[in-house]
Amino acid sequence: MTKFVLTGAAGALGSVLRGPLSQMCDELLSTDIVDEISDLAPNERFVQADVSQRDQIGPLLEGADMVIHFASIADEAPFEELLGPNFIGAYNIWESAHEHGVRRIIYASSVHAVGMHNVNDGIDLDAPHRPDTYYGLAKCFTEDLARMHWEKRGIECVAIRIFSCSPEPGNARALGSWLSYGDLIQLVQRGIEAPTVGYTAIFGISGNTRGAVNNAKASYLGYVPQDNAEYMAAELLAKAGKLDPQDPQHMKLGGPFAIVPLGESGVAMIKRLSEGNA
Amino acid sequence: MTKFVLTGAAGALGSVLRGPLSQMCDELLSTDIVDEISDLAPNERFVQADVSQRDQIGPLLEGADMVIHFASIADEAPFEELLGPNFIGAYNIWESAHEHGVRRIIYASSVHAVGMHNVNDGIDLDAPHRPDTYYGLAKCFTEDLARMHWEKRGIECVAIRIFSCSPEPGNARALGSWLSYGDLIQLVQRGIEAPTVGYTAIFGISGNTRGAVNNAKASYLGYVPQDNAEYMAAELLAKAGKLDPQDPQHMKLGGPFAIVPLGESGVAMIKRLSEGNA
Amino acid sequence: MTKFVLTGAAGALGSVLRGPLSQMCDELLSTDIVDEISDLAPNERFVQADVSQRDQIGPLLEGADMVIHFASIADEAPFEELLGPNFIGAYNIWESAHEHGVRRIIYASSVHAVGMHNVNDGIDLDAPHRPDTYYGLAKCFTEDLARMHWEKRGIECVAIRIFSCSPEPGNARALGSWLSYGDLIQLVQRGIEAPTVGYTAIFGISGNTRGAVNNAKASYLGYVPQDNAEYMAAELLAKAGKLDPQDPQHMKLGGPFAIVPLGESGVAMIKRLSEGNA
Amino acid sequence: MTKFVLTGAAGALGSVLRGPLSQMCDELLSTDIVDEISDLAPNERFVQADVSQRDQIGPLLEGADMVIHFASIADEAPFEELLGPNFIGAYNIWESAHEHGVRRIIYASSVHAVGMHNVNDGIDLDAPHRPDTYYGLAKCFTEDLARMHWEKRGIECVAIRIFSCSPEPGNARALGSWLSYGDLIQLVQRGIEAPTVGYTAIFGISGNTRGAVNNAKASYLGYVPQDNAEYMAAELLAKAGKLDPQDPQHMKLGGPFAIVPLGESGVAMIKRLSEGNA
Amino acid sequence: MTKFVLTGAAGALGSVLRGPLSQMCDELLSTDIVDEISDLAPNERFVQADVSQRDQIGPLLEGADMVIHFASIADEAPFEELLGPNFIGAYNIWESAHEHGVRRIIYASSVHAVGMHNVNDGIDLDAPHRPDTYYGLAKCFTEDLARMHWEKRGIECVAIRIFSCSPEPGNARALGSWLSYGDLIQLVQRGIEAPTVGYTAIFGISGNTRGAVNNAKASYLGYVPQDNAEYMAAELLAKAGKLDPQDPQHMKLGGPFAIVPLGESGVAMIKRLSEGNA
Amino acid sequence: MTKFVLTGAAGALGSVLRGPLSQMCDELLSTDIVDEISDLAPNERFVQADVSQRDQIGPLLEGADMVIHFASIADEAPFEELLGPNFIGAYNIWESAHEHGVRRIIYASSVHAVGMHNVNDGIDLDAPHRPDTYYGLAKCFTEDLARMHWEKRGIECVAIRIFSCSPEPGNARALGSWLSYGDLIQLVQRGIEAPTVGYTAIFGISGNTRGAVNNAKASYLGYVPQDNAEYMAAELLAKAGKLDPQDPQHMKLGGPFAIVPLGESGVAMIKRLSEGNA
Repeated sequence: MTKFVLTGAAGALGSVLRGPLSQMCDELLSTDIVDEISDLAPNERFVQADVSQRDQIGPLLEGADMVIHFASIADEAPFEELLGPNFIGAYNIWESAHEHGVRRIIYASSVHAVGMHNVNDGIDLDAPHRPDTYYGLAKCFTEDLARMHWEKRGIECVAIRIFSCSPEPGNARALGSWLSYGDLIQLVQRGIEAPTVGYTAIFGISGNTRGAVNNAKASYLGYVPQDNAEYMAAELLAKAGKLDPQDPQHMKLGGPFAIVPLGESGVAMIKRLSEGNA
Repeated sequence: MTKFVLTGAAGALGSVLRGPLSQMCDELLSTDIVDEISDLAPNERFVQADVSQRDQIGPLLEGADMVIHFASIADEAPFEELLGPNFIGAYNIWESAHEHGVRRIIYASSVHAVGMHNVNDGIDLDAPHRPDTYYGLAKCFTEDLARMHWEKRGIECVAIRIFSCSPEPGNARALGSWLSYGDLIQLVQRGIEAPTVGYTAIFGISGNTRGAVNNAKASYLGYVPQDNAEYMAAELLAKAGKLDPQDPQHMKLGGPFAIVPLGESGVAMIKRLSEGNA
Repeated sequence: MTKFVLTGAAGALGSVLRGPLSQMCDELLSTDIVDEISDLAPNERFVQADVSQRDQIGPLLEGADMVIHFASIADEAPFEELLGPNFIGAYNIWESAHEHGVRRIIYASSVHAVGMHNVNDGIDLDAPHRPDTYYGLAKCFTEDLARMHWEKRGIECVAIRIFSCSPEPGNARALGSWLSYGDLIQLVQRGIEAPTVGYTAIFGISGNTRGAVNNAKASYLGYVPQDNAEYMAAELLAKAGKLDPQDPQHMKLGGPFAIVPLGESGVAMIKRLSEGNA
Repeated sequence: MTKFVLTGAAGALGSVLRGPLSQMCDELLSTDIVDEISDLAPNERFVQADVSQRDQIGPLLEGADMVIHFASIADEAPFEELLGPNFIGAYNIWESAHEHGVRRIIYASSVHAVGMHNVNDGIDLDAPHRPDTYYGLAKCFTEDLARMHWEKRGIECVAIRIFSCSPEPGNARALGSWLSYGDLIQLVQRGIEAPTVGYTAIFGISGNTRGAVNNAKASYLGYVPQDNAEYMAAELLAKAGKLDPQDPQHMKLGGPFAIVPLGESGVAMIKRLSEGNA
Repeated sequence: MTKFVLTGAAGALGSVLRGPLSQMCDELLSTDIVDEISDLAPNERFVQADVSQRDQIGPLLEGADMVIHFASIADEAPFEELLGPNFIGAYNIWESAHEHGVRRIIYASSVHAVGMHNVNDGIDLDAPHRPDTYYGLAKCFTEDLARMHWEKRGIECVAIRIFSCSPEPGNARALGSWLSYGDLIQLVQRGIEAPTVGYTAIFGISGNTRGAVNNAKASYLGYVPQDNAEYMAAELLAKAGKLDPQDPQHMKLGGPFAIVPLGESGVAMIKRLSEGNA
Repeated sequence: MTKFVLTGAAGALGSVLRGPLSQMCDELLSTDIVDEISDLAPNERFVQADVSQRDQIGPLLEGADMVIHFASIADEAPFEELLGPNFIGAYNIWESAHEHGVRRIIYASSVHAVGMHNVNDGIDLDAPHRPDTYYGLAKCFTEDLARMHWEKRGIECVAIRIFSCSPEPGNARALGSWLSYGDLIQLVQRGIEAPTVGYTAIFGISGNTRGAVNNAKASYLGYVPQDNAEYMAAELLAKAGKLDPQDPQHMKLGGPFAIVPLGESGVAMIKRLSEGNA
């Protein structure tokens, strides 16, 4: 019997994953900090838990084969707010995995771990960490933690560096950075079904015509994106109009996160910029 | 209102670009050293100018948004002949762009900037300059000039390293090096419409089955070639017959330019070789 | 008149190549250590010869344009057994080629020359030799020999690092490593028809969704795989079941060869493991 | 008037630095979690503060030119114990520096940020993070934090990756990893006096004959080690006796930390191993 | 009989080289655009010539074994002014060398060919061209020209990328960038006496404690600097005072040239900055 | 009790090593194909054995701690002659080491494993194999064999790529390539006394001013050359006179071996060239 644990199950991406995950295992234990979630699959069980509390999250991993760890604050925020869910939460997951003999963790990392690289650097998976925010720093922290747990304890991890995951590409930057829900699901599935993965990072983007990064070094995972933001190119480019080439947000992989003040919400900034003209 | 300036408008490639460019802007100012050109588009204006004369070319850039700089002698020639159009001309364009606040230049660079690399080196866009001719040296000069103007003054540039641009692939080497007119147009359009480009070089080849170079580091531009020289493979390989593996022209990216004496016409040499058996 | 020599003509892969090769040349001389082979093509001639005996194999190369060198023991074996066919045999081929002015050799190298790299290293063609067996060491030896003969004597070589070449992908590992017969034939043909190749190595795998290696640096050869093991994914993954992530055979390119004791048959080990559950 | 702040002033290394630092500035503010320290220099002031408490540490940075940040638990420990001083403490320092306009931070990083690399990898400063312990992970975290603060806010940092800093080289491993007190002082001084440093990491080792890492990429700092552990070679090698080549602690930069269980004290392990025979 | 030709013989560096060069050959032909130079060595002859005029400079190379090419405007200047001596002059030297069978050219290149790299990039000789001025662009041009003449015609060249060559280190930046006259002479001599050099670039700096670049890839030339700017460190650092870390001139190899407006004198800027406080 | 086995003990280098080795162990077993050697050390025993005969060489390794494997034909020769001592001999040593539990092998590899690289490539220890002769190919073979035995069986190896080992530097090339006897002894000693080495290659050259290669990646071994060929520079350069820059022997690391016909003696060629004027 196969048991998976999904953290952050009530979040935007967790909600997308619940259905597909329930079909990849015998038992899906979904958890989140919210009180309840609706529409449980027949083999799905929900347990409320705060990932930043080891005694809450730890016991859920008992008997699990894999953890799909998506719980976190999904935006730039003050470090003090990120500390529990994004840093301590990751620690709790890996230590609990070790305690319960869980073999592998699929982790929702982010482009913001490398957001200060330029789009025309054409980076691949060997590029060093260059976080653009405390949010990105938490992803760097967890990737390094995951690599260490593989090298010291043999716990496997696929870290998916999610770019802009949404139903539709929402602005000009998303022509390069969009990750469709379908491709997210595929990435998670590939990470789960590969016979062995050690520690592997992979960029989570769809097959966008204007994608700026190179996944060749993780090709063994067999990720073949099915979607491409290009169908929205004419509309979104027109909407963006002329941009300031000296503005780092247009040259950095992290986009607006590259210029957002540390600790302030990047989502609010994107909204503000979008309502303006970026 | 958007104004583009196209230099070398009467040349082989400039002629291909005039129509498409006229549709990407409100006003297209086409210029060349020849007296006149025919078939102007409704929003196209022609002004005769010698790119090697700053006082002729400079004023044309006033109010321009972008310059598409294709004016040059398009063949190996004595340095003294290349000096005006290919070296000084480039200088004139960038200085005039600075003077008039032009934001970006799309530049017709060439494979001959890196022509002494071998086909089985599989170079990517980080490979160092290795010019094969004075013609190629002028491309190295202009690429370095363009990078400097980006780093010092913020003038953007996409340098398209054009391989063998022609209506049809013309010889065995072109199976790897062909650039179709359609793909050239796409490259120029991608360079124009990308929100920001900084300084970016990209190889200008079609999606040839036997292409020898790797554009992954400029993938953010979204260039997706539509053509492939392979449809001519059987015919052209048969025509080429057996080649001398020790002859550098078959192993070097620059092809015949890799063996043409400096300062002598490579086009004449290609013709001569083609009439023979290469 | 074009003459090709195929060694190892009676082997599993040699048998696949005989027909297609006979159509690429005027005269195909097939040779093997066996007494005879059946179904000769009209322009094919068979001569029994032991590749480890220079006086047997050498004279066959007289007048040849190319040698397709596939003769070898195709499995891990004691070094003493490999010495004749896999080491001395290669030496005999290259020296005889030099003696008779043969221009190019297509060589059946193997993934086992680099079998100790990990699948998530995402290696390309510049990765250093890391043999996993004496069998792989013979491939390293021959690749180095071939490169030297190109650099010192101008004899060209394409070394095809064959992964798992078989009619169908046979186990979970083959989802990444399969090379179909059709793609093998294409690789050999590309190596033969390219105008010049110098010394070039290329990975011999089909276009597998889960392929772990990168052929970009040999793209000029124009190899475009037509097959993909993925059609067997569901079946083979199910058959494999859960694997031990700490077991090097699942993380190394060489697969079971990465753990087979030196000098013992890897094929037997694969069979044993397959009958178990790996 | 120049003001420096030294954190961890009562620690083993802080105590070494207090005197020299007091001579490089007009006012030295030394702080530590202990109650008091003795032998204050004339221009030195001590304030007790817990670096993990922003309201305690923050105000001390007012008017400071530089912070020399050495406060931390200097050993592997449970993550929960490291969280305050080693993670949150670093955050507090950088945020407070930003708040008070401090220009530069000299940071006591550690070899354990890269401790899982092998000694015969010969790594240089571009090698990726591979922490060997939670202690090392805190160093990775702080280095990434520091780089981000430089790229986003212009706060400079020199991260000194301290190896084995002690009065004398204490075991066979220290022949490669020793950092003398004198060389530590020089490293800190170089970091302080360099006109500009951006974000720079440098390995903190003496000029040991058997040093395994390469500082060439930070040569502009002008660090020229004056000490060398080699004078103890005969004695320490004899004491070590034969070692197990398969034991990772002898091949990894991190030494015993490469094998210490996560969260347990590496110092205790070293003591235990030393009393045995490693 | 050995004949050397020195161009720019009356310049600051040419004057330093005349004496030593006269002792390395049988006949030294010194040339410059000035009318005359004094203190000729017994085997030295002076001929006035403008390097930008082929008919003046070309005939002087007849019978020469080597050219030591130092003629150029040694400062940033309008491109129009640099064109003759720095661009066309280089062309004239190489073409004349080809015409007269000269075997090797020692060329005074400059750090300003790579001046936009950061000091903490720790670049080595493989770093790409990133000129900081038109002056630097002329050096890039000539280096590419030289490499091409080696690859196409077999004319050897050692390009010495001179940093800050002066009798004494003159400011804080020179602690890293100084090249003493003695070390310049050694570099030229090494370039002359090496049996073969092909095309080789080497950084021209003394053995400065704070040097930022790495000459390891040209170690075969045997350049062992004898001088070190460090003896001036205390004085020059004190004089410099506090610098603005955000000011690119302190982080770029090119120093003030990294911020000098294109076409304006960098020397004047340095003077101006030095009189201020940089 | 420590037992070392030295193969090739009667050879030029073996003779140099016997004395020093006898002082590093309790028992030195020296072996060679010759009948006897003189001047045995008190703790040295000589046994005649042909390294190409497993039954002769194998039993000698019983109880050994280390093997110092220097037996080989030390010159280019027909492959058939090299096969026994240089190829099979190496195999015999490693298999016998495995059989008898020997922990480490110090191997006399050679520059000729990488002899086709250019001196101005400035290669380091990561450069790929590019043998210049069959002699060099045997070194490539053995290095790959050694790496495999480390990765598969845990037998350690230090491969010393010996350049020109002789009492005095003998010609102009040796100014870069000389290895003094003293430095050879140090290299062997460092390889023996390092606590662990895994598989490590290191260039065997003295600290020559004109050395062309970079040992930084093996710095942990602590090799600090004491000798330098430069004291002979004036004399040897004068003797060499002018060399042909187009002649590969002057640009390739392998020197005359880079041009010696495969299978013919390079020593004879060096002698011939030296008596001429190269």
